[in-house]
Amino acid sequence: MAFTPTLPACLKGNWTVAQKEAAGLAESLRECFPRTADQPAVRLEQSDAKPSDDRRPLNVGIVLSGGQAPGGHNVIAGVLDFLQARHPGSRLFGFLNGPRGIINQSAMEITPEKMAPFRNQGGFHMIASGRDKIESAEHLQKAAHTASVMQLDGLVVCGGDDSNTNAAVLAEYFLAHDISTGVIGVPKTIDADLKNDDVPISFGFDTASKVYSEMIGNIMIDAASAGKYYHFIRLMGRNASHITLECALQTHPQAALICEEVASHEYTLSDVTEQLADMVVARSAAGKEYGVALVPEGIIEHVPEVHVLIKELNELMAASPEMAENPAAVAEKLTPASAKVFELLPASIRLELLLERDPHGNVQVARIETEKLLLRLVEAELQKRRAAGSYSGKFQGLSHYFGYEGRCSMPTNFDATYCYSLGYAAGALIASGQTGLMTSVANLERPTTDWTVGGTPFTGMMCMERRNGKLKPVIQKALVDLHGPVFKAFKQQRDKWAIVDCYRSPGPIQFSDTGAYCATQTLALEINNGKPISIH
Amino acid sequence: MAFTPTLPACLKGNWTVAQKEAAGLAESLRECFPRTADQPAVRLEQSDAKPSDDRRPLNVGIVLSGGQAPGGHNVIAGVLDFLQARHPGSRLFGFLNGPRGIINQSAMEITPEKMAPFRNQGGFHMIASGRDKIESAEHLQKAAHTASVMQLDGLVVCGGDDSNTNAAVLAEYFLAHDISTGVIGVPKTIDADLKNDDVPISFGFDTASKVYSEMIGNIMIDAASAGKYYHFIRLMGRNASHITLECALQTHPQAALICEEVASHEYTLSDVTEQLADMVVARSAAGKEYGVALVPEGIIEHVPEVHVLIKELNELMAASPEMAENPAAVAEKLTPASAKVFELLPASIRLELLLERDPHGNVQVARIETEKLLLRLVEAELQKRRAAGSYSGKFQGLSHYFGYEGRCSMPTNFDATYCYSLGYAAGALIASGQTGLMTSVANLERPTTDWTVGGTPFTGMMCMERRNGKLKPVIQKALVDLHGPVFKAFKQQRDKWAIVDCYRSPGPIQFSDTGAYCATQTLALEINNGKPISIH
Repeated sequence: MAFTPTLPACLKGNWTVAQKEAAGLAESLRECFPRTADQPAVRLEQSDAKPSDDRRPLNVGIVLSGGQAPGGHNVIAGVLDFLQARHPGSRLFGFLNGPRGIINQSAMEITPEKMAPFRNQGGFHMIASGRDKIESAEHLQKAAHTASVMQLDGLVVCGGDDSNTNAAVLAEYFLAHDISTGVIGVPKTIDADLKNDDVPISFGFDTASKVYSEMIGNIMIDAASAGKYYHFIRLMGRNASHITLECALQTHPQAALICEEVASHEYTLSDVTEQLADMVVARSAAGKEYGVALVPEGIIEHVPEVHVLIKELNELMAASPEMAENPAAVAEKLTPASAKVFELLPASIRLELLLERDPHGNVQVARIETEKLLLRLVEAELQKRRAAGSYSGKFQGLSHYFGYEGRCSMPTNFDATYCYSLGYAAGALIASGQTGLMTSVANLERPTTDWTVGGTPFTGMMCMERRNGKLKPVIQKALVDLHGPVFKAFKQQRDKWAIVDCYRSPGPIQFSDTGAYCATQTLALEINNGKPISIH
Repeated sequence: MAFTPTLPACLKGNWTVAQKEAAGLAESLRECFPRTADQPAVRLEQSDAKPSDDRRPLNVGIVLSGGQAPGGHNVIAGVLDFLQARHPGSRLFGFLNGPRGIINQSAMEITPEKMAPFRNQGGFHMIASGRDKIESAEHLQKAAHTASVMQLDGLVVCGGDDSNTNAAVLAEYFLAHDISTGVIGVPKTIDADLKNDDVPISFGFDTASKVYSEMIGNIMIDAASAGKYYHFIRLMGRNASHITLECALQTHPQAALICEEVASHEYTLSDVTEQLADMVVARSAAGKEYGVALVPEGIIEHVPEVHVLIKELNELMAASPEMAENPAAVAEKLTPASAKVFELLPASIRLELLLERDPHGNVQVARIETEKLLLRLVEAELQKRRAAGSYSGKFQGLSHYFGYEGRCSMPTNFDATYCYSLGYAAGALIASGQTGLMTSVANLERPTTDWTVGGTPFTGMMCMERRNGKLKPVIQKALVDLHGPVFKAFKQQRDKWAIVDCYRSPGPIQFSDTGAYCATQTLALEINNGKPISIH
């Protein structure tokens, strides 16, 4: 509560808005975004000129979209403080329960008094979040109506790739319908799969990965102390494995699976199982019957053969739902390859897959507890090896899932400061009449005062992707780059970590930590292209 | 690493050892412990007399027994620093991997250099722990051999109720066999079920309950932010529910089940399910489709009807193991009451119970994921109510288990200081020739300097209990007192917490926290008998 975020120098004093060159866009994108395709990137540059005369009051709306990420409240505080300081008499409205609040025109006015108890606090509960999308003609129309009726000068959208894709569409729609509401995005996601040259990190990733690393470190020390358990730990990350990679670099586990690597090598379930079993056997030979493995939740979906199995299961269940009660008969109806994968699965997981289908009758692969499945598979593989005489150790597995506990933690000092700057900058972009931009605060490896501030066009981050059979403009998820410096740093060390205990238990987040530092190993390695970075 | 624990005043200067009256013991206990039954409690009293002339070097052994608890390394550091300061030339040996190290005479000499990296750190990995027991004639003989050969003046046993029961037997055995090794216990368990008038708290409880409360608080904020999930959180505590109770007082969840209450009221699974469903229905009526419930891992075992079911299942499986594959046929062979309970269980849990039996063929009730079972039962109950028209909400459940991540966290400043004092005091008790005592450091609500130090006889904590058909002297587990101030404080508030969101998210443990405070709400309420305590 007592923490006061500092601002980058350019936001403390006065600034001028400099334009950067627009990126050359593909024709298909240009067609979707005729009005925002040539939007230039902008940069707020520190200026000694006298303060701007434009102090007219503004009406600004803000919405939190999608999953929670630590620091969201400080984005709101940043916008509020910008408006209070630079445009007295302005009004800030928080749309309730995510984008649905815009559609329904359901908002709460945010005053300094209402803001106070939420500053530097975790969660999104001040105005809450939601996963609705403003995509249909009806919803776009309603959003435009809300913006007009509320006379909004700007709308700040805090969200991930999907929400910012929506924001891009909204910006274009508002321009096309002569609505003068600027739409400015803020990069939010603990998954860290929303980043690019101008946006080095999404907010929440630093805090969430530190919360998970605290827990993983504790469990490692427990593993080494008890000496008798293998802990398989599932972490968030359905598509990108940045969280798992960051936590691995923070804690040095025996193994960490990376979705991007599994997909790129087209590993089978057996491949992954055998890699893990090899590690267990090698450690057992060295007298160690314990260890820790990190598993991103999306790993199963990235195994190509599981993809095929799920597809076959869904078709089969659609045709004969009564078969759900009889897993043995199901196997007979699958192709031989899929039957083999299905029979690999432990009985209780097979049953759960068949019985607990979603409202459309589809198998819920996301409900599979990946870490448990792998634990069972490794157990079975080790039993085989024991029978063959190639393993004589003792394997006891325990499973964990760390996800929700990282999304609403109190933000680290980095996330608290970064979010406050993002909010303040988003306010500045709106005040200078910008739209169709994602707020960009960069140079994050330097002290806060040296951070750079600007906006980067949504359209420059987009490409056309086939979704549900149709080509759609989307902001691409930033996946783990298997040739990038972060994965490389992990790859160079993982064979050693597998056998030699190099555990690192970083402990709980400390708020007294006032020194500047680079948030996450991922960012440090990316900034310096893999070379060790010296942080002042 | 930089933290320096302070010592109580009486350990900083000089002390005299004062005896307190021995407790009157039952005849049956007196027969088991003829030599230690009349052991008086002792108290180290601050003294202005000149320092004792007795500075002869001592040989001391220390062993960590059972599950990890934060602070264990500081107990070792406390003993070491006592020996270095007061008996120069002493040697301290850490027995490796728990009591088995005593049996096998496997130990490591602990020097200040070896100690340094483990000070204030979590885990037991410096010398590791184990769950072996020194109970059989052979093991007692081997332990006596180790003590003689190593010429130990004392043996410090850090453990819970079982390990300290063993320590009591060892103290008696040593006296009976003219071995001059004093045996001194240290109260260790995150479960907090080892406490009495002289031992206000076991070490590790403060840290572990704070780690769990951090995670629970984060999840609460997530629940309130997303507004669409019920989180059922399982916590450690097979017998006693102190952890769940403490975490409930720290975080204010919608529900917290207490094993002792379930057992005392002889609640059925349906009773527990209906209580939880009532809460969900009431919140739904108030527009809230989210919440958090805490569940101690032992809750199922405390439901009397589940006891009976498990017994029947084990008998059935022993007679016809092939039935494991056929849950439907199993139900027909059970008594009607047990069949009803069995059919209440979700299909996948039934299957898991039957298939995954322990090496003796017994059903592993401890493997049931209690929080998931309850989630499914509540789901089913709500479906019934929906069909009956008494509920129209939307229930989505998520489950969590917090256990291992709390056992090896870095200790709080309280646990670091308390453990250091316990170790220092254990050294002092050994040096003054004591045996058969548990180290007692009390007055913990006061600043460290005012803490009192002494030893309380093992025998005074014991009673005769029937275990495996035989009467055995044991240290009784301290269960939650349903008429005590802690449960009362919870009971007074829980109905409000169920409906009104009073979430409290305490955040991560901070090490910069230098002020004195009372470790845990439990201790604060116990010390002051439920009245609000003012902490300086």
